[in-house]
Amino acid sequence: MLTVGTVAFDDITTPFGRAEKVVGGAGLYSAIAGSYFTGPVNLVSIIGGDWPKTELHNLEERGIDTDGIEIKEDDKSFFWAGKYHDNMNGRDTLATELNVLADFDPVLPEHFKDSKYVLLGNLTPEVQSKVLDQIDNANLIVLDTMNFWMDVALDALKAVIKRVDVLTINDEEARQLSGEYSLVKAAEVILKMGPKYLIIKKGEHGALLFGEDQVFFAPALPLAEVKDPTGAGDCFAGGFVGYIAKTGDISFENMKRAIIHGSAMASFCVEDFSIERIKNLSDFEIKERIESFKKLSSFDL
Amino acid sequence: MLTVGTVAFDDITTPFGRAEKVVGGAGLYSAIAGSYFTGPVNLVSIIGGDWPKTELHNLEERGIDTDGIEIKEDDKSFFWAGKYHDNMNGRDTLATELNVLADFDPVLPEHFKDSKYVLLGNLTPEVQSKVLDQIDNANLIVLDTMNFWMDVALDALKAVIKRVDVLTINDEEARQLSGEYSLVKAAEVILKMGPKYLIIKKGEHGALLFGEDQVFFAPALPLAEVKDPTGAGDCFAGGFVGYIAKTGDISFENMKRAIIHGSAMASFCVEDFSIERIKNLSDFEIKERIESFKKLSSFDL
Repeated sequence: MLTVGTVAFDDITTPFGRAEKVVGGAGLYSAIAGSYFTGPVNLVSIIGGDWPKTELHNLEERGIDTDGIEIKEDDKSFFWAGKYHDNMNGRDTLATELNVLADFDPVLPEHFKDSKYVLLGNLTPEVQSKVLDQIDNANLIVLDTMNFWMDVALDALKAVIKRVDVLTINDEEARQLSGEYSLVKAAEVILKMGPKYLIIKKGEHGALLFGEDQVFFAPALPLAEVKDPTGAGDCFAGGFVGYIAKTGDISFENMKRAIIHGSAMASFCVEDFSIERIKNLSDFEIKERIESFKKLSSFDL
Repeated sequence: MLTVGTVAFDDITTPFGRAEKVVGGAGLYSAIAGSYFTGPVNLVSIIGGDWPKTELHNLEERGIDTDGIEIKEDDKSFFWAGKYHDNMNGRDTLATELNVLADFDPVLPEHFKDSKYVLLGNLTPEVQSKVLDQIDNANLIVLDTMNFWMDVALDALKAVIKRVDVLTINDEEARQLSGEYSLVKAAEVILKMGPKYLIIKKGEHGALLFGEDQVFFAPALPLAEVKDPTGAGDCFAGGFVGYIAKTGDISFENMKRAIIHGSAMASFCVEDFSIERIKNLSDFEIKERIESFKKLSSFDL
């Protein structure tokens, strides 16, 4: 699989504590989540000279190919600081420093261009398009985006949406993009924009998959403690694409399984700050977590 | 089964229209929903002389025993007027006229007292307690309540919570009652207050069942049109208790099925104003709807 997204520093404050200048970014989270299911994970991103080389080494160790990470030694990495509200359901951005991201013009290494399963993480639609321009014959292209791009670059966003197979956004974003409040109607409108499948992420309320005139409702695991929600959506998307890359099956039935695998990765992610919880998961832990999703939502009639 | 709750008039405005002085009330909705699965449904309530006798007759026709409905011919029925917000996720109360409800002191007919499956609909905790005092040897007692009683009568509410088997509240109410934001922690606290099971209703996001150290996540059916959410929670509770009364099985596994049946009744309820959609459902429609819940949430690993 290939994933493109930020590799950055975060400063995160939640009711459970603060993590100062820790590693983060959609590209980092999604690549790690995907690496549990498939390899190599071709990571496309840009960092400054300040991003730790040991962490780059750690990524290589887990089967993440970092050849697509441009390093601007004289510049600084993208930085985001945020503070979550007491109920964790909202957050305020305290600082955003684009740094290297301001001039990000991704050039894919030659051996990345035939990646078959592609995740376009949340970035400017122009950057997402530029990555797509360099990909030949992908089996599945998944696009993650957010309301910000709907506000400031709707036409460019719609142009890239037209080129992808799966769009993942949250419920409010689906409503904004479609102009429909009902998620069923929103899905109808969005699926006419190009993608064959739409995943609506609802955080602690699970996720919905629309496509092929079907709908699937994936539960979220109720958790006793959510320490830091940062990266959950990226781990979801990375786990989703990683599982599809592993299985090579893009049917609706397999996408359901992929969503459960993505949800499992997201559920680990929020249990600790930064990548602490997801950097050393065992196969047994992942298997057990996925089975708990099955138990959570299964019933016989 | 026995259900106690209001039988009333509503004046409802939603983005889809207005229904003026239509029949409503938790007792009415829950009794109708339950009547599709079990009978007789013993309905305990109070109405004024203005509540239509033809509607009482209709209830009898569908196996609802109205002997427990006190009729105060010289008084008026409970009346509620409300207007839903554009997104349907909130509503403003425009008027509440207690009328007969102000002096409701339920006296159960003799043949109601051995009801085995009891639903205490949202009313003052004192009235709910008085009903319980008259019930002998129930197999299962389900309590529905709301934040209002937590605000104004918490001690009385806690006293009745201690006496029931299942408590149904929404997510915000679970947080308020427990003082915990995490629903997992909230459930732990609430299950120590007495009930063996807790159902947390999340509206369009489904429902959670906690108990016996297990948790079940029931999806809500994504609907293209929600015309009027009024009564959805009551139909959920009525369908839940009705299904358990039909099957006589209070295991966790069967409660999962019961929640799906309750969710199906709620999904019908919101498709039209008042009891329009739920008053004439066919067995086939209900079976089909329940199967769509199965399809919605099932996956193989």
